[in-house]
Amino acid sequence: MNAEIIAVGSELLLGQIVNTNARFLSQQLAGLGIDVYFHTVVGDNPDRLKSAIEIAEKRSDVIIFTGGLGPTKDDLTKETIARHLGTDLTMDEAALVSIELFFKRTNRVMTENNRKQALILKGSLVLPNDHGMAPGMVYQGGSHTYMLLPGPPKELEPMFLKYGGPALAGFGGSGEQIVSRVLRFFGIGEAALETDVLDLIEAQSNPTIAPLAGDGEVTLRLTAKHKDVASAQAMLDDVEAKIRARVGEFLYGYNNSSLLEELTKVLKKKKLTVTAAESLTGGLFQQEITSISGASSVFKGGVVCYSNEIKEKVVGVRPETLAAHGAVSEECARELAVNAARIFGADIGISFTGVAGPDELEGKPVGTVYIGISVAGLPVMVEKLSLSGTREANRGRAVKFGCYYLLKYLKESQDAG
Amino acid sequence: MNAEIIAVGSELLLGQIVNTNARFLSQQLAGLGIDVYFHTVVGDNPDRLKSAIEIAEKRSDVIIFTGGLGPTKDDLTKETIARHLGTDLTMDEAALVSIELFFKRTNRVMTENNRKQALILKGSLVLPNDHGMAPGMVYQGGSHTYMLLPGPPKELEPMFLKYGGPALAGFGGSGEQIVSRVLRFFGIGEAALETDVLDLIEAQSNPTIAPLAGDGEVTLRLTAKHKDVASAQAMLDDVEAKIRARVGEFLYGYNNSSLLEELTKVLKKKKLTVTAAESLTGGLFQQEITSISGASSVFKGGVVCYSNEIKEKVVGVRPETLAAHGAVSEECARELAVNAARIFGADIGISFTGVAGPDELEGKPVGTVYIGISVAGLPVMVEKLSLSGTREANRGRAVKFGCYYLLKYLKESQDAG
Repeated sequence: MNAEIIAVGSELLLGQIVNTNARFLSQQLAGLGIDVYFHTVVGDNPDRLKSAIEIAEKRSDVIIFTGGLGPTKDDLTKETIARHLGTDLTMDEAALVSIELFFKRTNRVMTENNRKQALILKGSLVLPNDHGMAPGMVYQGGSHTYMLLPGPPKELEPMFLKYGGPALAGFGGSGEQIVSRVLRFFGIGEAALETDVLDLIEAQSNPTIAPLAGDGEVTLRLTAKHKDVASAQAMLDDVEAKIRARVGEFLYGYNNSSLLEELTKVLKKKKLTVTAAESLTGGLFQQEITSISGASSVFKGGVVCYSNEIKEKVVGVRPETLAAHGAVSEECARELAVNAARIFGADIGISFTGVAGPDELEGKPVGTVYIGISVAGLPVMVEKLSLSGTREANRGRAVKFGCYYLLKYLKESQDAG
Repeated sequence: MNAEIIAVGSELLLGQIVNTNARFLSQQLAGLGIDVYFHTVVGDNPDRLKSAIEIAEKRSDVIIFTGGLGPTKDDLTKETIARHLGTDLTMDEAALVSIELFFKRTNRVMTENNRKQALILKGSLVLPNDHGMAPGMVYQGGSHTYMLLPGPPKELEPMFLKYGGPALAGFGGSGEQIVSRVLRFFGIGEAALETDVLDLIEAQSNPTIAPLAGDGEVTLRLTAKHKDVASAQAMLDDVEAKIRARVGEFLYGYNNSSLLEELTKVLKKKKLTVTAAESLTGGLFQQEITSISGASSVFKGGVVCYSNEIKEKVVGVRPETLAAHGAVSEECARELAVNAARIFGADIGISFTGVAGPDELEGKPVGTVYIGISVAGLPVMVEKLSLSGTREANRGRAVKFGCYYLLKYLKESQDAG
């Protein structure tokens, strides 16, 4: 069984928003053993939507539509599909009651166009919307399964997890499970990695091995197909062992893990806490670590010291240091890391200072970054980077390198001890 | 002239990454007066890529491919297009030299598969890659223009801006410009907004008016077509004035602006500085404000106070406050805002404390948020929210509401004064 995801919305074609729903649904469908061969995006235009449906019917078994279920005039997914399939739209009373309750609960006045959201394809299975108004639906027409989901991710995601996925499983499938595992590497380039494992990539068809580079990381995606999940996992274990034997030193994690999640795990295991003094990164390290549920056991707080005044008065960097070396310097990074650890009572202090861009600073070029790492009982370490991306990319990359260096330092000191 | 964007990469179909290139290119193409009617995503599979090309040739003038130009075995965009068009691939000497230099500069060893990246469609215009190795290209075949761009956004974006866009302009176009303007609203629902302006939406075909909701905001996208940009702008001005007369009180900004950017503008104008004490949001407010280039004139630094210990010892919240009311309380939000402003020497202190989820805290439900706002010379204000999203959504929403309340407070105090 294979699927196609058709996103409906001119805002996507104008670049106003990005199609994150396609990513979410693709991940989910892979887990259900359903291959996704195409994503399509089409505007709020009935003729072009109709042509996209016709193309999808020729090449896909399951067609999932996202968006265009809202109350406004340009929301026309249901209407176009109904006309194409020659079926009627009927009012779903349960959905209508749910919409009326939504307005009562939020103390707002329900306008007439909101009733339209309760219309469904006659004969379809309704997928309740627990986080919004427009219900989703699944319709079986001939050999095709049509699923309609609302556009907002905060409505679509819980709806698919709770109702849509199980409904699809009910409609059947090949019975073959697709199991993927992503190996994450840092510190090695894509081509070098591929050269090291090329014979493995070429020899394998199940599991497949696919490299991907991005944001300073390289990943290898291993994908196995088997009727039985445990057997598919065993196939992945086998390939992973072969890859590890070649490039295991650069492997830091799996799947959607991040360097920060790995760091959090290691800190938890070692019962260490970390704080940060962030200039260049403006709070990104702290924002990312606190976005990990349960981070509170390793992170209590930290400081954003954007100006030199704050570096001096709040974080206690010596005026002489700033005068002699500037804020973008090894010396400043060192004092920030050490002082932050003391002020916030943490075992580890990490600091980020540098030139994010677009303009150079203190005569230092854009992309110059110093990362200070102070670990209780170990010598203070400062690493210098020369990054070459945009402002946002440089900030993100700096945080990744910070995690990478800290993880490496903790590992080396453990190995040495 | 209309265009279709075909992204090539199984990683997109497996949900490993999201198609941000389609958004970027769509925005750029609109600016060039080129309508985008379809986005397609297809995997690293020659047969399915060929079928996607055939479909695109039937409905689109310009076909832009992203991805699949890299050094590895599953990068096959060029090869598939060459076979489909019956043209050859030839080695581009300039691109090869550039790749060799890239390896020299980064002190890495060039592996043989990297040479493949310098192959181009014979007769195409080469688009140099200033931020990576694989060059892009533009090929004119019959009535179609084929553009091939590398997948990594940090290579694709500068390449399109510097070489790809100008090359397309050279290949001609309708001469008609598409000018878009997005009006951004906060504090009003999508259906209510549409009801208020429905007659305008229905009466207009050029400019068009399209509503879109997301993340607690509603936008109206106005799009005008005219041979002359100034005339198109005047058409947009006219429609905007009509909309403002109805719902102007909820309008806060334009296009890709954000509440934080609006706040930054207002603070700059009033020569005020802001600091933050963030618990719930873990540094998100500070990370976002420092991602705005030039924020340093309004933001000097702030604190992330994730644990009660840091709230007390570093930000000076009274132990009695925490004991009597807890950290998720009006009283704590008030002290955090006032104390942060004092410690960081800022005119304004804003604080975020609450329950991000997934678990409740201090017996308070997930989504409970207190935002404290302390403005020099004005009474301290605390707003309470009850949000209903995921952990990440609640953090993001809290920051938006913080900006919204602060903007409103500054405006009201100015109007009153």
